[in-house]
Amino acid sequence: MGVIGAGAMGADHIRTIASSVPSARVSAVYDFNRDTAYAAAAPVGADVVGSAEELIESSGVDAVIIASPDRTHAELVRICLAAGKQVLCEKPLAVTADEAYGLVEAEAAGGQRLLQVGFMRRFDPGFVALRRTITDGVVGDVRLVHAIHRNASSSTSTDDAGLITGSMIHELDTVAWLLDDEVASIRVESPIVEGFRDPQLATIWMRGGAMISAEVFVNAGYGYDVRCEVVGSKGTAALSPSAPVSTRVAGVDGVPVRDDFVAHFADAYRIELSTWAGEALTGSTTGPSAWDGYVANAVAEAGVLSLSSGAREPVTLRERPALYA
Amino acid sequence: MGVIGAGAMGADHIRTIASSVPSARVSAVYDFNRDTAYAAAAPVGADVVGSAEELIESSGVDAVIIASPDRTHAELVRICLAAGKQVLCEKPLAVTADEAYGLVEAEAAGGQRLLQVGFMRRFDPGFVALRRTITDGVVGDVRLVHAIHRNASSSTSTDDAGLITGSMIHELDTVAWLLDDEVASIRVESPIVEGFRDPQLATIWMRGGAMISAEVFVNAGYGYDVRCEVVGSKGTAALSPSAPVSTRVAGVDGVPVRDDFVAHFADAYRIELSTWAGEALTGSTTGPSAWDGYVANAVAEAGVLSLSSGAREPVTLRERPALYA
Amino acid sequence: MGVIGAGAMGADHIRTIASSVPSARVSAVYDFNRDTAYAAAAPVGADVVGSAEELIESSGVDAVIIASPDRTHAELVRICLAAGKQVLCEKPLAVTADEAYGLVEAEAAGGQRLLQVGFMRRFDPGFVALRRTITDGVVGDVRLVHAIHRNASSSTSTDDAGLITGSMIHELDTVAWLLDDEVASIRVESPIVEGFRDPQLATIWMRGGAMISAEVFVNAGYGYDVRCEVVGSKGTAALSPSAPVSTRVAGVDGVPVRDDFVAHFADAYRIELSTWAGEALTGSTTGPSAWDGYVANAVAEAGVLSLSSGAREPVTLRERPALYA
Amino acid sequence: MGVIGAGAMGADHIRTIASSVPSARVSAVYDFNRDTAYAAAAPVGADVVGSAEELIESSGVDAVIIASPDRTHAELVRICLAAGKQVLCEKPLAVTADEAYGLVEAEAAGGQRLLQVGFMRRFDPGFVALRRTITDGVVGDVRLVHAIHRNASSSTSTDDAGLITGSMIHELDTVAWLLDDEVASIRVESPIVEGFRDPQLATIWMRGGAMISAEVFVNAGYGYDVRCEVVGSKGTAALSPSAPVSTRVAGVDGVPVRDDFVAHFADAYRIELSTWAGEALTGSTTGPSAWDGYVANAVAEAGVLSLSSGAREPVTLRERPALYA
Repeated sequence: MGVIGAGAMGADHIRTIASSVPSARVSAVYDFNRDTAYAAAAPVGADVVGSAEELIESSGVDAVIIASPDRTHAELVRICLAAGKQVLCEKPLAVTADEAYGLVEAEAAGGQRLLQVGFMRRFDPGFVALRRTITDGVVGDVRLVHAIHRNASSSTSTDDAGLITGSMIHELDTVAWLLDDEVASIRVESPIVEGFRDPQLATIWMRGGAMISAEVFVNAGYGYDVRCEVVGSKGTAALSPSAPVSTRVAGVDGVPVRDDFVAHFADAYRIELSTWAGEALTGSTTGPSAWDGYVANAVAEAGVLSLSSGAREPVTLRERPALYA
Repeated sequence: MGVIGAGAMGADHIRTIASSVPSARVSAVYDFNRDTAYAAAAPVGADVVGSAEELIESSGVDAVIIASPDRTHAELVRICLAAGKQVLCEKPLAVTADEAYGLVEAEAAGGQRLLQVGFMRRFDPGFVALRRTITDGVVGDVRLVHAIHRNASSSTSTDDAGLITGSMIHELDTVAWLLDDEVASIRVESPIVEGFRDPQLATIWMRGGAMISAEVFVNAGYGYDVRCEVVGSKGTAALSPSAPVSTRVAGVDGVPVRDDFVAHFADAYRIELSTWAGEALTGSTTGPSAWDGYVANAVAEAGVLSLSSGAREPVTLRERPALYA
Repeated sequence: MGVIGAGAMGADHIRTIASSVPSARVSAVYDFNRDTAYAAAAPVGADVVGSAEELIESSGVDAVIIASPDRTHAELVRICLAAGKQVLCEKPLAVTADEAYGLVEAEAAGGQRLLQVGFMRRFDPGFVALRRTITDGVVGDVRLVHAIHRNASSSTSTDDAGLITGSMIHELDTVAWLLDDEVASIRVESPIVEGFRDPQLATIWMRGGAMISAEVFVNAGYGYDVRCEVVGSKGTAALSPSAPVSTRVAGVDGVPVRDDFVAHFADAYRIELSTWAGEALTGSTTGPSAWDGYVANAVAEAGVLSLSSGAREPVTLRERPALYA
Repeated sequence: MGVIGAGAMGADHIRTIASSVPSARVSAVYDFNRDTAYAAAAPVGADVVGSAEELIESSGVDAVIIASPDRTHAELVRICLAAGKQVLCEKPLAVTADEAYGLVEAEAAGGQRLLQVGFMRRFDPGFVALRRTITDGVVGDVRLVHAIHRNASSSTSTDDAGLITGSMIHELDTVAWLLDDEVASIRVESPIVEGFRDPQLATIWMRGGAMISAEVFVNAGYGYDVRCEVVGSKGTAALSPSAPVSTRVAGVDGVPVRDDFVAHFADAYRIELSTWAGEALTGSTTGPSAWDGYVANAVAEAGVLSLSSGAREPVTLRERPALYA
């Protein structure tokens, strides 16, 4: 494996592969900042290479993980596809839906899936159990989903559009996957009318009829929190927040709330990497595809438009290549 | 006290007063169905009278509780006001906002508060504690409120508008009281586009800037459930659902969900009646006023309009008499 | 009603009767400290009388509540019985089992139940639901009960024996009532071997075969807490701790723990007083009897003995008069 | 790695190493039942060998996992020690404390730690967090621990002594590790006096003064459950039971209880194997030692004795070799 981008996310992936993914080994690391690359590569005995292109084209690299800044994703994925290398690209796949669709076309032209997008929630034990609960018919027909996504304070998502394309994009992918459905239209609003519009409240209509209410709040203050309740005709199912230990001290019976999404989703990242590595080496990845990445970008664009227009904006998708049928 | 309407709600009030409200005694009961009236009156030694008017005008009745069908509320309240009798009227105060405003004017003309509207949640220990948590500044500035209101199956609310005026009206009053603010506009939507539009999802804008997301679902299947989470700049506060006993049996660790709102809000009804009775006998009620009842009707009308128009509808209120300043 | 002892407990009873028990009125109050008596009596319009005897014998007093210091209970109950007055005596009924048995004999001689002991947990909605869950067979045959009883800091129970006779006595009565069984033997131990032996851990054998593990800790630091889990052949049932509001602030998702047992059991006290008042006025109380009070004293004595001896001590009861069959 | 015993536990270890432990590879498997061995070995490409001795002495095996029946543990460990091979032996280390002490002496004679005992709870994120909470001083000085260990139905532990040596032995090791203390004495009792004495209630005294109350119930009916609450001078800390999803259906708000301890402790087993593998290959294991295994056996023996004698039995330990200082 080669890893491009050795910041917080990339370095964590490198550690996770070394500690928990027997089928893979990180052999090469690239980061714009050479010290950062060395710090992540050294403990696992990987080489630091001089450029992303060199890493991708190296014969010692069977598969590539892209964890560099968002604006570089599309171009790096394009190089991987051209080189025929399996690639796991952190979300978002691209900055615009058009750019993402270019990657869909490029991969489809090759006739083989090489690309997986890092929507790690699809591997989270909680979300997986929630999806199975729906599939098993426990809640009946789904009518509504209430999704909540909060950070203690904004880090990556620091402007109105970035909150949608950087944070809410997880919900946009998650609800489609949870309900096995597509987003038909979206409206995004905020109680904040001047300055950074945070929190944002999205209302989403699925083609199958369900509605979604999603709150994303990147300055929620108290910690990192992801919640999801699915409301059906027979009952509801919800992620059950967990903490290892509860304490009763000084008049409070409480559990800690993490303030770090990497720790919160540690299992999801481990299972994502382990599953992807196993599949990538046999050339048959089945996780979130280029098409899923494009769709999330397209829905996010409609969301950004809605935040300005105040209207419910339809999501129109371009043709879906047979590869993603 | 005289009680008009001895159905489920009225009969429960009669029992509650007899068992838990030392300052009051039910002396007269009227119900359209004479047998119903006797069944409720006999155990507490109250008289059954021949008409609502007779009850209101009886010298043995210091204060009146109206728990008859919704469409009769406004006229009965009007007679109480004319007779100078204290009256606790179940929600909604009237069928239309205009009708409700007529009562506001009638009471204001008398220069004295005689009317309280049965928004019993304002007396519920959970909602009271939630309001105090906000007032104490625990969550910082309120940005969002997520409210949920579910019944196992529809009983009173059986059409699109009735769901708003009969069930959601509780949320419409609650959020204004919780945040000490007024509703500026409302949008009501539903994932159901044909037939009974249930559940409904309301988005509400408060004049002070907070937004509310409220789900009302009167055929939720699993039971009666009321939830509320307030999201602020420093953290969140939520009603903490409670059950007396949890069991672990046959692979499930669970608590029962009631399917009965009277049992769910038993404490709220008891405290409401006890507080009102104490105040009514001294002529100084401080609970939800005619104005609050009118405002809830006005917001509900905007909600009903929005459900048809699909648009965010503003709430315009008529002049607020000084009595309700 | 007359109330003897207007300290925290007595004053609370006076307020509860005035606010929530329509069938009763407090007409007379006595306290060793005359100012204390006035402070509690004045708000409800009751008279302050010069002695407990005077209160009991007053023709204006139909029933007596004893909330004076523990050592005075037995003598005051004796006077009530002699006067033929209904009496609700706070626990413990007496300081020794012998003394309590004297009251059993005295009441039995009169052939009529006049005395109820203030084991208010039998009226607590949580414990009542827990008992019904057992009776309904939900957990199968009961094997074990885990009981926990904690105070933030010791107030009344300040020595080794007092912890048993003042605090643990609640568990001693509760388990017998919950399981409809009698305590056969008891062992009480403590991790503290020098100084105040707090917490104490009791192991209790019921005649029917179940075992109880009960922790009483009167300096638990964090607050007031009462827990109980019943373990049966098919599953378990437990009190479900409740709080009106939960908050997520500063990295903690928590609910408050009360530090006041009066607030914790407010519902239990209200229902106890209301039920007792209703029954006492018709001369037919059915709550915890003199016999129950004697049994609790006898078990507590065995517990105190065990704490010294280190052995499992049998509970031997004297003859049970037919009145308590 | 070589694995001896490919039943449920051994097969799970083989799968876990293949899927999640990059530093190790299972190269050889032995099971008394050859088909069982093949079924576990084939998917990971390991060889099936003809005897446990052959496996241990194979030059292709750097470290051995023993997951064969309990009575074979001691002899197999002895062979591993003689061969100088690192070994992870499932609990219990031996059938008797004497036998276990023989292994302590054998390892100590070699002057190097080669043996780790499979007390996997020491690697469970919940127990690790609970221990850190204690160490951090959050609960103050520990006074009591309440431990609960329940199986849906008895599988391995099917007689009175086996319940202690097979199931309760986890609690016996856990409390010593949690409190960094030693068991001084133990008493084991049961509400069941004839037939299989299940559940059992142990009272344990630590040398440092804390007391433990531990319930082990291997026919609890409803599922697999492990709970632990630590009570200190300032507050309490407890394992916080978790489930991925909660549902509200048909009047119950609940979460599933697993009935499988392997699934319950999946993370613990993964981290145990990963940590041990990493250390074993460098010859420096730091997990539960031969001494810990011996101590657990010695405490279990005192427990078995107590179950018959009814008395509190002291735990006397033989000399602790310097290797385990």
